[in-house]
Amino acid sequence: MGPHLLSRWPAWVFRVAPGWWRKGHSCALLRTWCVPGVTTGQTKWPHSSWGVWGTSLLAHRGCSSVSSRPAEVMLTQERYPVQRLPFAVVSDEDLAAFERILPGRVITSSEELEAVNVDWLRTVRGCSRVLLKPQTTEEVSQILRYCHDRKLAVTPQGGNTSMVGGSVPVFDEIILSTSLLNQVVSFHGVSGVLVCQAGCILEDLSQYVEDRDFVMPLDLGAKGSCHIGGNVATNAGGLRVLRYGSLHGTVLGLEVVLADGSILDCLSSLRKDNTGYDLKQLFIGSEGTLGVITAVSILCPPKPKAVNVAFLGCPGFTEVLRTFSSCKGKLGEVLSAFEFMDAGCMRLVQQHLHLSCPVRESPFYVLVETSGSNMEHDEAKLAAFLEDALDSGLVTDGTVATDQRKMKTLWALRERITEALSRDGYVYKYDISLPVEQLYDLVVDLRARLGPSAKTVVGYGHLGDGNLHLNVTSEAFSPGLLGALEPYVYEWTAGQRGSVSAEHGLGFRKRDVLGYSKPPSAIQLMRGLKALLDPKGILNPYKMLPSQA
Amino acid sequence: MGPHLLSRWPAWVFRVAPGWWRKGHSCALLRTWCVPGVTTGQTKWPHSSWGVWGTSLLAHRGCSSVSSRPAEVMLTQERYPVQRLPFAVVSDEDLAAFERILPGRVITSSEELEAVNVDWLRTVRGCSRVLLKPQTTEEVSQILRYCHDRKLAVTPQGGNTSMVGGSVPVFDEIILSTSLLNQVVSFHGVSGVLVCQAGCILEDLSQYVEDRDFVMPLDLGAKGSCHIGGNVATNAGGLRVLRYGSLHGTVLGLEVVLADGSILDCLSSLRKDNTGYDLKQLFIGSEGTLGVITAVSILCPPKPKAVNVAFLGCPGFTEVLRTFSSCKGKLGEVLSAFEFMDAGCMRLVQQHLHLSCPVRESPFYVLVETSGSNMEHDEAKLAAFLEDALDSGLVTDGTVATDQRKMKTLWALRERITEALSRDGYVYKYDISLPVEQLYDLVVDLRARLGPSAKTVVGYGHLGDGNLHLNVTSEAFSPGLLGALEPYVYEWTAGQRGSVSAEHGLGFRKRDVLGYSKPPSAIQLMRGLKALLDPKGILNPYKMLPSQA
Repeated sequence: MGPHLLSRWPAWVFRVAPGWWRKGHSCALLRTWCVPGVTTGQTKWPHSSWGVWGTSLLAHRGCSSVSSRPAEVMLTQERYPVQRLPFAVVSDEDLAAFERILPGRVITSSEELEAVNVDWLRTVRGCSRVLLKPQTTEEVSQILRYCHDRKLAVTPQGGNTSMVGGSVPVFDEIILSTSLLNQVVSFHGVSGVLVCQAGCILEDLSQYVEDRDFVMPLDLGAKGSCHIGGNVATNAGGLRVLRYGSLHGTVLGLEVVLADGSILDCLSSLRKDNTGYDLKQLFIGSEGTLGVITAVSILCPPKPKAVNVAFLGCPGFTEVLRTFSSCKGKLGEVLSAFEFMDAGCMRLVQQHLHLSCPVRESPFYVLVETSGSNMEHDEAKLAAFLEDALDSGLVTDGTVATDQRKMKTLWALRERITEALSRDGYVYKYDISLPVEQLYDLVVDLRARLGPSAKTVVGYGHLGDGNLHLNVTSEAFSPGLLGALEPYVYEWTAGQRGSVSAEHGLGFRKRDVLGYSKPPSAIQLMRGLKALLDPKGILNPYKMLPSQA
Repeated sequence: MGPHLLSRWPAWVFRVAPGWWRKGHSCALLRTWCVPGVTTGQTKWPHSSWGVWGTSLLAHRGCSSVSSRPAEVMLTQERYPVQRLPFAVVSDEDLAAFERILPGRVITSSEELEAVNVDWLRTVRGCSRVLLKPQTTEEVSQILRYCHDRKLAVTPQGGNTSMVGGSVPVFDEIILSTSLLNQVVSFHGVSGVLVCQAGCILEDLSQYVEDRDFVMPLDLGAKGSCHIGGNVATNAGGLRVLRYGSLHGTVLGLEVVLADGSILDCLSSLRKDNTGYDLKQLFIGSEGTLGVITAVSILCPPKPKAVNVAFLGCPGFTEVLRTFSSCKGKLGEVLSAFEFMDAGCMRLVQQHLHLSCPVRESPFYVLVETSGSNMEHDEAKLAAFLEDALDSGLVTDGTVATDQRKMKTLWALRERITEALSRDGYVYKYDISLPVEQLYDLVVDLRARLGPSAKTVVGYGHLGDGNLHLNVTSEAFSPGLLGALEPYVYEWTAGQRGSVSAEHGLGFRKRDVLGYSKPPSAIQLMRGLKALLDPKGILNPYKMLPSQA
């Protein structure tokens, strides 16, 4: 039996008598099956659904292997039909006032401004002439009070990792960076409650709490850059929603500076507080349009002591769904991820990234992760689930990893799909939520609809969250193909009461598709909330809410 | 060894070698240790923190053993300093209009109105002359549109189990009952998403989803009466918050009728949806003051296959906290409840309810519940935790139950404390959240402060959620004792950045203490939201927001 075969489970593994795992040798067996032939040590990629990128983004993400300078991004105001609203223009007097509030932290150099005017997908570009870097909530308050009085527009910016052009100015809005609001305020070792400033980088926080035997309740591919304040402002999803739920449940408190500079202190560290309306919820997912989040209180779960990753082949999408049901029943409380990808995705990562498929070729693949407090128990649960899944034909082949390196290798197959897509051609990307039963129907439907006009039509995503990443490629941008995709994809999604933006938000680029997922009465109430909290409209204008007809 | 001794763990149970539970006999052992001498089959009591009640409440809760008719409750407008706002008065023309909208479901009989005008704690009483029972969202919409035009005030009412006088009229507000909005709309067996009308009774929903191998993410003592719409409107806490989080995380969508009768359809069944502001969050915990919830979409977790309950004695509160930390580490993902009570609570349930303490007398007691997918694994985790807790002196004695009847018996010790308190004398009740480290300090502080003027000062609650139920009794109501308690308790809580209402909300009776937990800027924003959503103030007036000075 050669090394490649060792990487797969021989069928007999699934066929041994129930209870075999109790005999003490199974852990060693499970741990020694590895996945050879897959490159390791690659850069950690941003979350796979985070859009199209090219060589310039490699450079942006710190990869030194590519050095070509990106072409200049067209100004948003030239590329898109958008009119500047009647905000004031930043004057030299304004700059002097800012300098008094933030001595030495008022940035006007064109080099530094270039990076913060362009989104990291390089699809939108503003022309702000000033970047402000407050260190305290009081400074943010003073800035906003000043801007509010002067009617100067402001774009809050965290790690600038938005997928929808939400974190850069559209015109000349002042860029208010949270990068120096980067202090941990407190951490409680009993309750697991972390309080920190909004500009803390997610990965730094993860490390901080992991050193104290906790984990952050969210994890994203962009964690090396994104700020916790931006995560909360965009209600970031990612890889841990299935296990720990959304930020609406895990964020305990927020400190927010409102448009007029007043400070709203809802920075509670309490799990339960039913005194009045839960105001912090307004700001979670409001994309910086209702206030600037300056500090976050968040509940961190205990760090799992044991993690397993299984990569499985399934004969059809029905079997993927049934595998998910079986998984929920048999893995129960230790299930921490259930991701799927179709055969097209596997072909792309094989062809463009030379990754090896660790299991027999299948129409669908599933990645299952368990995170628990007892390795032996978790492995036993996983073995029982896999035995059943194979016996009942839900799964035709599979491999398991328990060590860090091999788990990363398996995760790479799922996480690097976006990268492979970007090498396949021009990519049309959709991030949608659908009832889990209908999750793949749109992919099948689109393949038939588009025929040979599309090079590739693939689907993958967070099946456990009902979140499909639908991607279509063509050799080059084709207006005809775009016309066949939009608004069809949005209409199809609306027909299933799905969401046209599951986790990326609306930002600038998707604000006009809001109506596919929300009724007019909801949009009217959103406008009412915006008018209540930001009557002059200075906070992140041109974002989230549809442009007025 | 007699049966009473069998009910306790002999110390050697904790001292056997690690791994003893693998030998196959431990489950039987654990299951046969029972708790004798405790009455069983008692009525399921409402959530222990749900206030003072006497014989009349036994009748209210369907207990046939007590039949004495309660004394009449004083009208709220006579007992409290509150002025009627200038709403219209219901006329015969209004009743005729309602009858056209709801044929046969406009109730004006004084007998039926008596029950819905009084809260179940019998502390407040309104004088509404009409109860409306819509069956559809469209009917709710028509009623509110009419009331809005006429400026008629409306009190939405679910199961009328509010602890703070939130669900009955203060004056003559129209009572809008959700009791006939009681249909399950859909349930998805893969995703566990339940969609139902707001008037479904929590216990009925629990049974419905348990028949399909799921559980509701919330559980309350009042589940036999309370409506899911009311649960959401009050952001009900209860026994499962530690495991499944708050309703802000588990509610996926709501349908709400706004004050002007317009229908806000945010009844999504999606786990992820980042299109616009998350409007449903506004209504979770808004106590019917911003809109009437007519339907709920909620994510149900899979039903645990194994449940264990351990009841432990601890030598001090420091050990209770360390037991909680150890528990989180060793039980990890299967920990589903961590409740504590002090020795005073145990004395009360022994004295007034003749319950037996199943362990050696201790300064503190802890109830730990595990819920998982594999009984053998869960028992092993529990055994490892207990072994360690006993060896390190955190726990001095304990007992475990795995069968339904015995678990209920142990839970009764915790859940019936309120009942025992009500038999001890007049009760002053506080439901507060505090940082978990400070949770018991207030109880100690108050004992010293009150001295012999109080009969009993006890503390118990959901330690895992940082939620203390602080209770003081005296032989009879004493204005002096009340003066020593308030505002001291609220000020003390505010000094720790705690919440003066952890899970009960504010309703009518607590609305004026909001300022102890929320700053003026937050209260101002709450008033802004109320004015935006209900400009005429017709929805549940005199509730939640402080009376204007």
